[in-house]
Amino acid sequence: MIVVMRADATPKEVELVASKIRELGYQARPIHGVERTVVCVLGQVYPELMDELLVLDGVETVLRVSKPYKLASREVHPMDTVIRVGDLRIGGGHIVVMAGQCSVDTVDYTLATARAVKRAGAHVLRGGAFKPRTSPHSFEGHGKKGLEILAQAKAETGLPIITEVLDPRDVEIVAEVADILQIGSRNGQNFALLKEVGRTDKPILLKRGMWATMEEWLLAAEHIMSQGNHKVILCERGIRTFETNTRFTFDVNAIPWVKRESHLPVIADPSHGTGRWYLVEPVALAAVAAGADGLLIEVHVSPDHALSDGAQSLTPENFTRLMERLRVLAEALGRPLHPEVAQTSARGNGQIS
Amino acid sequence: MIVVMRADATPKEVELVASKIRELGYQARPIHGVERTVVCVLGQVYPELMDELLVLDGVETVLRVSKPYKLASREVHPMDTVIRVGDLRIGGGHIVVMAGQCSVDTVDYTLATARAVKRAGAHVLRGGAFKPRTSPHSFEGHGKKGLEILAQAKAETGLPIITEVLDPRDVEIVAEVADILQIGSRNGQNFALLKEVGRTDKPILLKRGMWATMEEWLLAAEHIMSQGNHKVILCERGIRTFETNTRFTFDVNAIPWVKRESHLPVIADPSHGTGRWYLVEPVALAAVAAGADGLLIEVHVSPDHALSDGAQSLTPENFTRLMERLRVLAEALGRPLHPEVAQTSARGNGQIS
Amino acid sequence: MIVVMRADATPKEVELVASKIRELGYQARPIHGVERTVVCVLGQVYPELMDELLVLDGVETVLRVSKPYKLASREVHPMDTVIRVGDLRIGGGHIVVMAGQCSVDTVDYTLATARAVKRAGAHVLRGGAFKPRTSPHSFEGHGKKGLEILAQAKAETGLPIITEVLDPRDVEIVAEVADILQIGSRNGQNFALLKEVGRTDKPILLKRGMWATMEEWLLAAEHIMSQGNHKVILCERGIRTFETNTRFTFDVNAIPWVKRESHLPVIADPSHGTGRWYLVEPVALAAVAAGADGLLIEVHVSPDHALSDGAQSLTPENFTRLMERLRVLAEALGRPLHPEVAQTSARGNGQIS
Amino acid sequence: MIVVMRADATPKEVELVASKIRELGYQARPIHGVERTVVCVLGQVYPELMDELLVLDGVETVLRVSKPYKLASREVHPMDTVIRVGDLRIGGGHIVVMAGQCSVDTVDYTLATARAVKRAGAHVLRGGAFKPRTSPHSFEGHGKKGLEILAQAKAETGLPIITEVLDPRDVEIVAEVADILQIGSRNGQNFALLKEVGRTDKPILLKRGMWATMEEWLLAAEHIMSQGNHKVILCERGIRTFETNTRFTFDVNAIPWVKRESHLPVIADPSHGTGRWYLVEPVALAAVAAGADGLLIEVHVSPDHALSDGAQSLTPENFTRLMERLRVLAEALGRPLHPEVAQTSARGNGQIS
Repeated sequence: MIVVMRADATPKEVELVASKIRELGYQARPIHGVERTVVCVLGQVYPELMDELLVLDGVETVLRVSKPYKLASREVHPMDTVIRVGDLRIGGGHIVVMAGQCSVDTVDYTLATARAVKRAGAHVLRGGAFKPRTSPHSFEGHGKKGLEILAQAKAETGLPIITEVLDPRDVEIVAEVADILQIGSRNGQNFALLKEVGRTDKPILLKRGMWATMEEWLLAAEHIMSQGNHKVILCERGIRTFETNTRFTFDVNAIPWVKRESHLPVIADPSHGTGRWYLVEPVALAAVAAGADGLLIEVHVSPDHALSDGAQSLTPENFTRLMERLRVLAEALGRPLHPEVAQTSARGNGQIS
Repeated sequence: MIVVMRADATPKEVELVASKIRELGYQARPIHGVERTVVCVLGQVYPELMDELLVLDGVETVLRVSKPYKLASREVHPMDTVIRVGDLRIGGGHIVVMAGQCSVDTVDYTLATARAVKRAGAHVLRGGAFKPRTSPHSFEGHGKKGLEILAQAKAETGLPIITEVLDPRDVEIVAEVADILQIGSRNGQNFALLKEVGRTDKPILLKRGMWATMEEWLLAAEHIMSQGNHKVILCERGIRTFETNTRFTFDVNAIPWVKRESHLPVIADPSHGTGRWYLVEPVALAAVAAGADGLLIEVHVSPDHALSDGAQSLTPENFTRLMERLRVLAEALGRPLHPEVAQTSARGNGQIS
Repeated sequence: MIVVMRADATPKEVELVASKIRELGYQARPIHGVERTVVCVLGQVYPELMDELLVLDGVETVLRVSKPYKLASREVHPMDTVIRVGDLRIGGGHIVVMAGQCSVDTVDYTLATARAVKRAGAHVLRGGAFKPRTSPHSFEGHGKKGLEILAQAKAETGLPIITEVLDPRDVEIVAEVADILQIGSRNGQNFALLKEVGRTDKPILLKRGMWATMEEWLLAAEHIMSQGNHKVILCERGIRTFETNTRFTFDVNAIPWVKRESHLPVIADPSHGTGRWYLVEPVALAAVAAGADGLLIEVHVSPDHALSDGAQSLTPENFTRLMERLRVLAEALGRPLHPEVAQTSARGNGQIS
Repeated sequence: MIVVMRADATPKEVELVASKIRELGYQARPIHGVERTVVCVLGQVYPELMDELLVLDGVETVLRVSKPYKLASREVHPMDTVIRVGDLRIGGGHIVVMAGQCSVDTVDYTLATARAVKRAGAHVLRGGAFKPRTSPHSFEGHGKKGLEILAQAKAETGLPIITEVLDPRDVEIVAEVADILQIGSRNGQNFALLKEVGRTDKPILLKRGMWATMEEWLLAAEHIMSQGNHKVILCERGIRTFETNTRFTFDVNAIPWVKRESHLPVIADPSHGTGRWYLVEPVALAAVAAGADGLLIEVHVSPDHALSDGAQSLTPENFTRLMERLRVLAEALGRPLHPEVAQTSARGNGQIS
């Protein structure tokens, strides 16, 4: 940490800052520049120190030098993390596709969608049993009944299941059905929930909070990992900006930045990241070209009957077309689509390989 | 709701949109303009309808006409809601001040701060026992022990207590000590938590999510109110923008906008809204001039020993100065400071008067 | 400037960074921390140096210690700048109000509005002859004819005139009529225009770019001042954020922050900062409570006939009410409304007193 | 346009709104819904009408149905525009690459960079003679001397030149050397400059304002086109968001959205869009996968000696690697790299084919 003094700070103020630093057990190294003095803090600092130094007299600002995340950082863990779900390897150099309905609605639609995405080559079935809804007057998911429908789809298709958990009290029952637990964007800094899923041994797909800097997103991963679960899959899904012609702004820069800073696999959600079905394919291809390890895509056999987010769902026809174009692109990039996997559901929890 | 057709939509596409609307039980009224046709939907619509119509062929966009919130809306409930906490009336035309430490740390500091804010004229004591922290390596609050310290401060000073709850499983124990439950910004769309506090009979101070539009903020209030608890106090605390010289951008526009749209009282938090102690006083005065019903302010007897957010905490001296300036300003605005109240702690839960 | 090395930087990379710094004529002072090394650069650096150091091998990031602005900075010029326009003193402890039409339309409306704002106590008449319009199909102002109408209004009421200039080629003719030249938000980083007005001796009201950080705004002032014209009045007018229920987000934090960093006077424009006439009064009062030296307000005798921005214009009745409330508030804050001034138009250009 | 009345609007207020609409020469069609009445306006409306209706009593809001842009709109002009610069066709199904230095510095560096980008397969040479600089204390380009250096590079390599123009007074001299005129992001709503370049017959590369919605960007194109010059190339270069780990947020959604709304070609600038050289390659590939017609890339033979933006410049080695990867990707997407073109400089101005 580096304490930048005000241009008019007195020698006495500088000395008091240095004393405070030493009192806390660090070394203080003042450097007198042309315009102002800075005091370097040497030692393994803690985040709160910044605030404690900021309030001292004569201090202009405090600059951070170390990264706030450790477990999620590539500096600490240089090799890519690969997460196994049965025979599926997420982050291992192949592109993985997770697809399905935003909300689990009827058995018929869910099974039809599951078959359709499997046929097109998807590796994981997504579907929401518990749904976060902006309005309390909206459909909030079928809850436990939704989980049963997902279990049925898994039994029939053999696809592993990813589904969202909203409440720390539901983690256990959701984990009974899900192969991957999803943390939604609105819970991107819900620390009670992050800790709870950090105590399971399931892979966690962590969506970026729509307001979260990339550092805060990695710190949210750190919350999960600090509880012992290192099987975190990051998911970029768009951020809030002033642009309103799309629902969110998909932050494509985030993909290579996070891959460089962290060893965790990164997945892209172009359905939420755009909010418009006709933008899903180009942004999905872009995300993979930028280095994403996979995609999370909304598909519904009948988007105009979807109980949520129909406007951003692909039909099976459009999804099949996307998969075809993706296959060619992924091949050209040297990171081909993950091969189809046999029944994965019996393999137990995810593992880091 | 109004469906705007593409300029090149065919009469057949318009007809199919109208059929779909009628099939769902609404009236459809097409209007043929110079450039394009719009189809008005008549009836009490639900939010999902927008998505269901957006995916139909030939549709350009769907515009919403009704407001998505009802219980929180002034259209439905024209008179100001006044929330009583003992003899204190929040939203009744007087300015109410809630002040204290960001985090409850030691008994000594907490009691000293409580006495100081009471002496300066604060009406409610704030203090965090459970703290949301961006980094898992930061201090996360004393939990239950923190609640006991708050109870002790309440017993000694007679000030009612406001404190944050983070986890739906903690609502019960926090509600035993707290007179007002606080929902933090990061939980501004944590629907599991919103519903849980909506099932208590305590007043809820609902901070705006740092990414939430004003509509989404009112919908979060609606989530609480939909469970039966109408004692919601809104709190503007700054939003995320591109500006980095302050920690957040305090959205002063939000105060008169929300007061106009909703009957709920509105409180301002200039400590988080600026993140800099030297900006707290001017922004606090601004918020009250803009129509806020009160303030939530961080005060610590020793900011350089605060376990969180020291950089935005006022010393008792600065807080006293703020209260003096506030008194004069509030008087001039015709909305004076709320009179001091006697022991309020024995009065049971908040009430709407 | 401080160069932060990567955690895995080699001693050789550190040495090359230090050499490069010395080669450029600065001192380099490496500090070896627990996790990484930083190299402090001592000397009067230039902004480009940052980029030149960032690309060297082993460099993680470069932190800036000095402020990028000098002439606009309070560190260099601690006393408040007061700008005189005839007998009017902007920034001298009194609140100054500039009011009038967004666009100059007809002679009748302009004169009627001028009389109305003078009667209510405004000190300066605003009016746009040249208008920046998002769409080329919108009314773009009357140009020279508009300037003549403004001259007529000035002759009749004695109010000094503030009006916008858009094109460096128009500076001369606009300066013949205007007492204060306005740079609009969309030209907040139009450096050709900033330099051109910097070569006049008129006071310049510089609106903040709707995308500009406060530092960039002060740097835009620096562009003007670097040409010799130090009579810059800063004007906060709202920034672009994700919030869409108001047209912009008025950044009230900016007022005390900029007053602390800079010696220049600061004016608030709540008309553009909100975009809704019913929010203008509360936000105007808030801006003054936060420390603004004055206000810029849109008023039109007949808002539904205004050729631009009618939705944010006050009627003379509403403006008169605002002035009455402002008078009481300003008095209470100890920074009363500026007294009415006699004919100011004959006094020549603005001066710094 | 659709006028939405307040829920408590009186029949008289509705009638007055309808009268006002009719008085202006439009048809008014009121629709009485369950909660509120809306009044549809039929006819070819102008943008200001919105504001004129918004201020009427009883009006809640006014919704726009028509698109504000016409000349740039695909509704009006369904076929893709292809812009010819000599034998080069921009927007014709091949990927075009423009590369070179941010600022023209020395003759030696500029020529060396020009040769390097030509060798790697670039089609156009970029280079800034006039530079917009945030700080007046930064290098602002060599101006006319820079143009001469560019002319020399063009003579030697045969590459057409793209360079920025900042001041309407410089358009003529810049157009003597440039084959494509560039409007920078900070001038994205500098209407005086947009109009001036709209009066030339050169192709214009229009960067998106870092604050501009996609609609506003198309309206800026409309400003140029309204003067008769339809040869506009749109360039996405990143927008301002809360994310600070990258310099801007490259808005990849914008590429397919704008391609769908407009017939104009779209180019991506990943150098400014990320601000970090190590993110340029992945984001460049992403932009092309999303549908961009080409790229604008900063390259410098010696980034640590670049007079601006060194941190985002590629070395010739990195640029060559990017071109190789791009060639494979573009081929796979069915939109291959544009073939090399012979001397283009003698062909005169750009044409629309």
